[in-house]
Amino acid sequence: MRMVDIIEKKRDGKELSTEEIQFFVKGYTEGSIPDYQAASLLMAIYFQDMTEKERTDLTMAMVESGDTIDLSAIQGIKCDKHSTGGVGDKVTICLSPMVAACGVPVAKMSGRGLGHTGGTIDKLESIPGFQVELSSGEFIQQVNNIKMAVVSQSGNLTPADKKIYALRDVTGTVPSIPLIASSIMSKKIASGADAIVLDVKVGEGAFMKTVEEAEKLAHAMVKIGNQLGRRTIAILSDMSQPLGYAVGNALEVKEAIEVLKGNGPEDVKELCLTLGSQMVYLSGKAQTLKEARTKVENVLANGKALEVFKTFIASQGGNPSIVDDPTLLPQAKFQVEIPATESGYVEKIIANEIGVAAMILGAGRATKDSEIDLSVGIVINKKVGDYVEKGEPLATIHSNRENINEIKERIYSNIFISNQKVEAPSLIKGIVAE
Amino acid sequence: MRMVDIIEKKRDGKELSTEEIQFFVKGYTEGSIPDYQAASLLMAIYFQDMTEKERTDLTMAMVESGDTIDLSAIQGIKCDKHSTGGVGDKVTICLSPMVAACGVPVAKMSGRGLGHTGGTIDKLESIPGFQVELSSGEFIQQVNNIKMAVVSQSGNLTPADKKIYALRDVTGTVPSIPLIASSIMSKKIASGADAIVLDVKVGEGAFMKTVEEAEKLAHAMVKIGNQLGRRTIAILSDMSQPLGYAVGNALEVKEAIEVLKGNGPEDVKELCLTLGSQMVYLSGKAQTLKEARTKVENVLANGKALEVFKTFIASQGGNPSIVDDPTLLPQAKFQVEIPATESGYVEKIIANEIGVAAMILGAGRATKDSEIDLSVGIVINKKVGDYVEKGEPLATIHSNRENINEIKERIYSNIFISNQKVEAPSLIKGIVAE
Repeated sequence: MRMVDIIEKKRDGKELSTEEIQFFVKGYTEGSIPDYQAASLLMAIYFQDMTEKERTDLTMAMVESGDTIDLSAIQGIKCDKHSTGGVGDKVTICLSPMVAACGVPVAKMSGRGLGHTGGTIDKLESIPGFQVELSSGEFIQQVNNIKMAVVSQSGNLTPADKKIYALRDVTGTVPSIPLIASSIMSKKIASGADAIVLDVKVGEGAFMKTVEEAEKLAHAMVKIGNQLGRRTIAILSDMSQPLGYAVGNALEVKEAIEVLKGNGPEDVKELCLTLGSQMVYLSGKAQTLKEARTKVENVLANGKALEVFKTFIASQGGNPSIVDDPTLLPQAKFQVEIPATESGYVEKIIANEIGVAAMILGAGRATKDSEIDLSVGIVINKKVGDYVEKGEPLATIHSNRENINEIKERIYSNIFISNQKVEAPSLIKGIVAE
Repeated sequence: MRMVDIIEKKRDGKELSTEEIQFFVKGYTEGSIPDYQAASLLMAIYFQDMTEKERTDLTMAMVESGDTIDLSAIQGIKCDKHSTGGVGDKVTICLSPMVAACGVPVAKMSGRGLGHTGGTIDKLESIPGFQVELSSGEFIQQVNNIKMAVVSQSGNLTPADKKIYALRDVTGTVPSIPLIASSIMSKKIASGADAIVLDVKVGEGAFMKTVEEAEKLAHAMVKIGNQLGRRTIAILSDMSQPLGYAVGNALEVKEAIEVLKGNGPEDVKELCLTLGSQMVYLSGKAQTLKEARTKVENVLANGKALEVFKTFIASQGGNPSIVDDPTLLPQAKFQVEIPATESGYVEKIIANEIGVAAMILGAGRATKDSEIDLSVGIVINKKVGDYVEKGEPLATIHSNRENINEIKERIYSNIFISNQKVEAPSLIKGIVAE
């Protein structure tokens, strides 16, 4: 087999065989196929797409390129959740205790990554004492005991995906549905998930800007999952504005706790209930989706989800008192309210730009080696559709430096006020089950 | 400027600016842009094509990537000829003395290259004593004195093209009109041509299989040439069967001499007259194409072209007696006639396969380091449309080894005989002037 023939076959729109895809993934991971041939194949895939069979083959080839996590020692159906990423997404933190409280084992490996804020692992590290590394034995034991553990990704999972992703990033081949779908799904499958609930974000603050694009990606991932024997469902959720109010690491943990207390922003809560009921249902802990939803609502209302969260924190060495006293979380030195300069209805909040503002404050990593300031960030006070009175705070900046003029300007120029009534966007844009 | 932005721009079908193309070509030649980014851009170009302006910019950027030949010390308009390559193409050898005899200065740099036989330089080396290397001073002086010199390409001409071509070869991006056109034109322009006559081969034995494809390539090259101030014309010529009868280095030199003597295969002669009259016309040595054609016919008829050829050989150290006694050229040990196994009309001669047979005999290079046997090759005895009697020779194998069963089989399975009359293909398929 020669790589150049594989490139030409894809370039000419033909379907690659399982063996050809394995040849590429294995050869590229091992280094016998050079970057330039991989780059040229990826660009050909960008233009020619991949069939369902090719996507499934690519996913499995990437899974087989490295270690896979064996979760068979954990009882029950292991259901994982994945979000395609957005601004203010603290869902993993509040959703996991909810479904764990319903009896679904949550054996979660999470990442740090680049972005506006840190990843779930960074956010959890804002809890004093919290340990993100467990041995595989401790990890499994904790899930069996208290139904929930969240650890930092370790081991050599999907090295092919890592190498291909890094190459896509510098060769203009990131926005390709088959490549995105197989990248996400390979990681989920290598992490040992039996069932997968996908939160595909859609809107200006997300990678997928339109419902059509998001649906395409959702279908692609659901088909791969189902093809590989993992029950998979995708929810399309709004990312036209930040999710909830808080953008920043400790700030988001605090907001997640509010949600677990039955308060917190309506959108975060509703998204948790939607995703949670799918997870409970797919894990076989409820006969119908309706029954699943009732279960999740109950553990939220009766405090069981909050209880699981506390136990989870304590079990990983963290201080559970932060739940009752969130001031124990890292606090920024300065908290500055940004008043509205006019009265009206919030028309638009450019999620990405609020995210960039948070990153500039230090909440996120611009490069792999950047250090994160867990205490800083931005809390918006109004969501799209809300009325705001002139002088009322639009947002609050949590900063450790005094000069925040740049941040202020960014906030003003990315929250638009209208004198017309504005409809709040719907949160759930669709469900894709096949 | 970032290469990834350039890739994405082309990927999305937008026109690259002159600066962006220069950035790519310069950076890639110098090594600051890695192979994988170049590969991905080339594949994006394969799918998105390039505008006329981009093609011209790419050509000039490749010209500027290395040395350029200054032919200003040679009087007159320097007109170069380029063939896109085929089997049995000995045109440069007989065409050059014809136009030189009409007063057109022929300052030709030629290559060796991979293929069924050697390049023009290899072919000329079958002339005993012939020197393919001249200093630039000698080269220019010889053209001024006797109107003709042919030397091996030297210097660092279009290094960007060399690097890009090598990459295209292994990344499935060879068959791209803008890339082929700019590659050819950059070399012609760097070699100092004022006017360019292109011989675009079309048919099964050529890179361009159909007249439509060949026309596209011809238009692309002519437009680049004219855009850059070089009068450029393309002739589309048949390559559905080998050109002439001989395929092999010394064998082709011998055939070229026959043509210069007014004999030789009709197709080679006609192609030389067609290309030659264009060159004489573009060089301003005739007021009309018709007048140019008459001039070329005259120098062929009155022996002046043959005279120039002799002087040219002597001037570069070769033995001009080969013209009168071609047995002085390298001769293969064995000459084996391949008789027709049935009577009928020659329907088809698969040029490429005859070429491969010649290469297996040793006439061409399979890899860069292969040594060529200048004496061997294949002379076909019949052309498409000819009648052949059973037992009459179809072809003659010139070989230095006794066992030629493989070659025989190849010849039999690639020359098709029909019991129906067959029309000979037309030689000239079109002329592209803009």
